[in-house]
Amino acid sequence: MRGTIAALAFALACAGCASQGTGMSENQIRRNANPNSPIPIATSVSVPAGHELVFVSGALPAVANPNAPPGTPEAYGDTRTQAQSVLSRLSEALAAEQLTFADVVSVRVFLVGDPRMGGRMDFAGFNQAFSEHFGTPNQPNRPARTAIQVVALPAPGALVEVDLVAARAR
Amino acid sequence: MRGTIAALAFALACAGCASQGTGMSENQIRRNANPNSPIPIATSVSVPAGHELVFVSGALPAVANPNAPPGTPEAYGDTRTQAQSVLSRLSEALAAEQLTFADVVSVRVFLVGDPRMGGRMDFAGFNQAFSEHFGTPNQPNRPARTAIQVVALPAPGALVEVDLVAARAR
Amino acid sequence: MRGTIAALAFALACAGCASQGTGMSENQIRRNANPNSPIPIATSVSVPAGHELVFVSGALPAVANPNAPPGTPEAYGDTRTQAQSVLSRLSEALAAEQLTFADVVSVRVFLVGDPRMGGRMDFAGFNQAFSEHFGTPNQPNRPARTAIQVVALPAPGALVEVDLVAARAR
Repeated sequence: MRGTIAALAFALACAGCASQGTGMSENQIRRNANPNSPIPIATSVSVPAGHELVFVSGALPAVANPNAPPGTPEAYGDTRTQAQSVLSRLSEALAAEQLTFADVVSVRVFLVGDPRMGGRMDFAGFNQAFSEHFGTPNQPNRPARTAIQVVALPAPGALVEVDLVAARAR
Repeated sequence: MRGTIAALAFALACAGCASQGTGMSENQIRRNANPNSPIPIATSVSVPAGHELVFVSGALPAVANPNAPPGTPEAYGDTRTQAQSVLSRLSEALAAEQLTFADVVSVRVFLVGDPRMGGRMDFAGFNQAFSEHFGTPNQPNRPARTAIQVVALPAPGALVEVDLVAARAR
Repeated sequence: MRGTIAALAFALACAGCASQGTGMSENQIRRNANPNSPIPIATSVSVPAGHELVFVSGALPAVANPNAPPGTPEAYGDTRTQAQSVLSRLSEALAAEQLTFADVVSVRVFLVGDPRMGGRMDFAGFNQAFSEHFGTPNQPNRPARTAIQVVALPAPGALVEVDLVAARAR
């Protein structure tokens, strides 16, 4: 019974798949997401011809604690705090183009090892912030994403930099 | 005389340029590849208007040896083994979009220093796996590509992550 | 009342928007740049439908000093020297597609820590070279850009790798 329901859900889900050519407009962005993934990202995102692409520069965090020594992670906060700041700046950059996170198709995440984590990147902390803006009831869209740990970012003390590509039908 | 021959060669070379509108269809993807490059990549790949772009998330390797300690390079295998696993996953992600490696236009390679190489990335090992899937008699297409050595990837022990962009005429 | 003012402000703001079809051609690339930024990059670059995208592979520097030990930063020069070499190669790759830096919409910069800088990336040195080719009187266009410090590049001794995406109306 459970299997039948699951199969039915799959059939229903696929009745709307653009790749099946039934239902969804050929001109719509398609997001192949694993609904069981704990991280709200898509395995792939397809942007049909006829879309404008918006390339957004890498965003760095704003200073969170002006009393901390400049150029230190303390000045910018922990990874989750920095991620919120970076996502906020990216949201503003998108808004200047009349876009939102719902329009994002590709995200690159560059993390620096967090001193509070023994020099390892705080991947979970980043994802906590990320999950408040992607794959939520209000904003269910998931982008393709890659995350890597790098040596450093242009702002000393910064632990998070993110850039992205958004798309809109024109 | 030499100049004349050179000019003639240039003119002949350009007689086949898509940008000259003669010969190749204006709507075809063009790959400027150095045929003498030992690595099967293109210097540039041009995707004309009218193509769908497919952004694929960074893929990490599957565990190769379940008996090795989790989260170690031993669990995932050496760089070449991990590269094969990553490329296999990317191939599946492309297949879900009815695409193959022949449709790939841009590849980003993120390698972690291999303990077996004294902490340097095993660039040759990665390229061995890559060369089985790109620039072969069966799949001659070459993507633009960038490869860098990073500090770490989201899965501890993973030495290889790759993401890509594919394109198809719509 | 407040809503009316807000709506009016939005309408006024949008009266100049290319997306509203007034003033700027709908088919033109738009660059949202902070004119006060010391670095000639755009916060975002929008590429309307109808453009060809050209993906250019990561470029590495040419050897600057054949007398220096191969595979060392001395062989390739300091970060600024390497950046000039890399940008020169990218310019050639673009020229092969009848494009120039004015057509670039997105740039990724990968820097290795410079031994002359105590292992930190020479971000200023890179930007000096970059600023000679972008945001100048002769070439005012600014791309979206992200810069990160990585562990190493495929060529030992190389401190600079850059890849990019260009676009042209077709």
